[in-house]
Amino acid sequence: MASAALRPLRLCWALGPLCLCCALRPAAAATNILLLLMDDMGWGDLGAFGEPSKETPNLDQMAAEGMLFLDFYTASPLCSPSYTPQDIVGGIPDSELLLPELLKKAGYTNKIIGKWHLGHRPQFHPLKHGFHEWFGSPNCHFGPYDNRERPNIPVYRDWEMVGRYYEDFKIDLKTGEANLTQLYLQEALDFISKQQASQKPFFLYWAIDATHAPVYASKQFLGTSQRGLYGDAVREIDDSVGKILKHLQQLGISENTFVFFTSDNGAALISAPKQGGSNGPFLCGKQTTFEGGMREPAIAWWPGHIPAGGVSHQLGSVMDLFSTSLSLAGLQPPSDRQIDGIDLLPVMLQGKLIDRPIFYYRGNELMAVRAGLYKAHFWTWSNSWEEQSKGIDFCPGQSVAGVTTHTQEEHTCLPLLFHLGRDPGEKYPISFASEEYQRAVERVSALVQQHKATLVPGQPQLNVCDQAVMDNSTVTTPNRQIAAFGDQK
Amino acid sequence: MASAALRPLRLCWALGPLCLCCALRPAAAATNILLLLMDDMGWGDLGAFGEPSKETPNLDQMAAEGMLFLDFYTASPLCSPSYTPQDIVGGIPDSELLLPELLKKAGYTNKIIGKWHLGHRPQFHPLKHGFHEWFGSPNCHFGPYDNRERPNIPVYRDWEMVGRYYEDFKIDLKTGEANLTQLYLQEALDFISKQQASQKPFFLYWAIDATHAPVYASKQFLGTSQRGLYGDAVREIDDSVGKILKHLQQLGISENTFVFFTSDNGAALISAPKQGGSNGPFLCGKQTTFEGGMREPAIAWWPGHIPAGGVSHQLGSVMDLFSTSLSLAGLQPPSDRQIDGIDLLPVMLQGKLIDRPIFYYRGNELMAVRAGLYKAHFWTWSNSWEEQSKGIDFCPGQSVAGVTTHTQEEHTCLPLLFHLGRDPGEKYPISFASEEYQRAVERVSALVQQHKATLVPGQPQLNVCDQAVMDNSTVTTPNRQIAAFGDQK
Repeated sequence: MASAALRPLRLCWALGPLCLCCALRPAAAATNILLLLMDDMGWGDLGAFGEPSKETPNLDQMAAEGMLFLDFYTASPLCSPSYTPQDIVGGIPDSELLLPELLKKAGYTNKIIGKWHLGHRPQFHPLKHGFHEWFGSPNCHFGPYDNRERPNIPVYRDWEMVGRYYEDFKIDLKTGEANLTQLYLQEALDFISKQQASQKPFFLYWAIDATHAPVYASKQFLGTSQRGLYGDAVREIDDSVGKILKHLQQLGISENTFVFFTSDNGAALISAPKQGGSNGPFLCGKQTTFEGGMREPAIAWWPGHIPAGGVSHQLGSVMDLFSTSLSLAGLQPPSDRQIDGIDLLPVMLQGKLIDRPIFYYRGNELMAVRAGLYKAHFWTWSNSWEEQSKGIDFCPGQSVAGVTTHTQEEHTCLPLLFHLGRDPGEKYPISFASEEYQRAVERVSALVQQHKATLVPGQPQLNVCDQAVMDNSTVTTPNRQIAAFGDQK
Repeated sequence: MASAALRPLRLCWALGPLCLCCALRPAAAATNILLLLMDDMGWGDLGAFGEPSKETPNLDQMAAEGMLFLDFYTASPLCSPSYTPQDIVGGIPDSELLLPELLKKAGYTNKIIGKWHLGHRPQFHPLKHGFHEWFGSPNCHFGPYDNRERPNIPVYRDWEMVGRYYEDFKIDLKTGEANLTQLYLQEALDFISKQQASQKPFFLYWAIDATHAPVYASKQFLGTSQRGLYGDAVREIDDSVGKILKHLQQLGISENTFVFFTSDNGAALISAPKQGGSNGPFLCGKQTTFEGGMREPAIAWWPGHIPAGGVSHQLGSVMDLFSTSLSLAGLQPPSDRQIDGIDLLPVMLQGKLIDRPIFYYRGNELMAVRAGLYKAHFWTWSNSWEEQSKGIDFCPGQSVAGVTTHTQEEHTCLPLLFHLGRDPGEKYPISFASEEYQRAVERVSALVQQHKATLVPGQPQLNVCDQAVMDNSTVTTPNRQIAAFGDQK
């Protein structure tokens, strides 16, 4: 079986907060929205989530002043962006109205800082999809590549390519030194200042990638963590988030700015220990639909609105950030299509708990479902035997018989059931013969039926197996495509 | 090789805070001392340490008001008490002066609530070793036993046996219901009130065992945890600790009472998921010298003295509670023998970090040493093949090649080295060929040499292989011995 990386993605699941369209209404209250999306950071990487070095005082403080979400999930155990090969020509279709497009019509000024990755071609450029400004890149900072067969990844300011990683934006793979997080921080601070001065509401999507291998940190943070280079990167991010929140407070707009911190998928244990993070007590990591692959650190912060020190067990999803952001902007959710996310404001403001399931997809496959504290696996799969034999291990040091399987094993008739309260590590399947099993699986089955009945699959846009979305010419002339944004404004 | 449970224990390592004697000096400041010692509770069992259900608001609050110790260790990966069979006649020798004996001479009134287990025979009774009062038992609440061949474990108030578990102190193994924690709580509150009224300093050793299998909770807590019965027990303990701290505050003596919360060894993963806790991101559990077996949750609380919200990476040991308590009582450490513990007050009051190693013993064997962030394993061993084949697994779901070995494997010439900052889960041994390895192992070797040169081994007191300490007559007349305290005051 092919690696998940090579399989088509249901785009809407992968894009999370940016996806889905809606009917518009005028903004009632123009709350600023700031989404901080980390790359390959795991649930267990923050002090507030139990990282034993406890080196994230600013994020822990953010949690103490806001609300900690302990059961918050990503929509896919890997980021489409980082797995979008350079020679793909697919991307986000115009038919998808993204969050910034909707907010733009409601008067917001929108900026993306960092990773985009919904396509490299001009029609997929973030400024064609609702953003006013961009500083970042349409891919991860992989490299360095040679500049003939394969150029380095470009970095853009708005429509203009302003340089390339490793060349104009240095990354020293030997020392791990790169000042990119500082650049992204400064961009954020400047944008916030500018917006505050103009008295216009803003949406800032801060999608930084220091914790994605190759991991990097600025000189001032190198060697400062107990955890090595990965920890240095986390510490720099923690410091940056602290500076952003302080900036909001100093400008006097913290009570008018909703901030949400989370990550795109679980820690990449294939890169551990030097380049990968921690999923705490959970099983496996990135690429898998075990808790380690999809449960994310998540913190909501909105002083004066979200009570300080809150802890929520609401089952949440990055897709909820779409609906929640619309709600913050005073917009109604779209009515012309199925919406997967929910508005989390009642959870954050009134402490409500909304009963809803979590669906765990790997590529197109519905691998598992969580309902309450139960999780039913319809398919189990860690890595392939081939990967395993090469040392590509998504579950290093972990092995649960019949669970962390090396072939994709079907359990659709008799799902493997776990109770995540008693067994967060997914080590002890509940007996098929028990009443508890019968009750839980009945509940899950009803949810799956309902889900499938209303599911409108997205068209795969980034399927590397689909020749129609691949630009084969790029193999010989990569520069043309990679820097395509720069040519066509 | 025999199970560790059956091997001799170096008593002083096992007893931790209660052990070692010292020269006395008059108390300068009579600070009350309250040691809360949990049974088989793991590092990952508290919200503040990353338990995903986050159900310990009172302990988390205690940490927020006090100091969290992230690198605190027990002296043995199992409690001698719970592994002292009923038919053993050994116990704590008179030559060992225990902490309550020293505090008694300094004017303290001392009470033990809960487990004693330094011997069943009259000469080992806690009231013969410095305590003024006792409510509890000389063993864990195992059972129910028949009352012919093997009687149920007795419960004492001071010298008097006041009943037996399962008979007079009900434990319903089917529902997990038992009100013992409530009894222990009430005992603590009453003792504190009485001492406050008498204006005499106290030492209270609250050694409760609800989290040791068979796990129990009071009716009001049953079914209240996401984590099942084990979580119910933790929630009741959390609630009880909250009530004790509140009581101190209401009596106005919180600023004169030092409180320390910790556990006797890592979570017993052999009893998981229903009867065992969590060791968070660490490897294995109770019985082993991996981090899961010996790193403990630890919180110090002393309002007005220990700054609120502190987090310490001081390498600490339960043995330090001996030296620290002496210091609190204004007593000098003993000078007539080697002291293994250190005074942690400079750490707690002035934020100091004291350079000291941690030695990991399993029985008599020095299995591993921690120096700074490095941990060197001289021996690796999880469980035996025989145990493994019977499903007695100290590392369920975890398997690290060459590390979680099923025979006791020697690495004394070339220790297995881990960096606990980058690799808290002990999954990635550092390359023998690296400079880092050379430097760290040199440092560790020097520490071991120094340790061995000054080591004064204790006489095994609880060695079930030693017929001299076993009372074979008890096989037929167990009542005589088991209730021996009651017969001879």
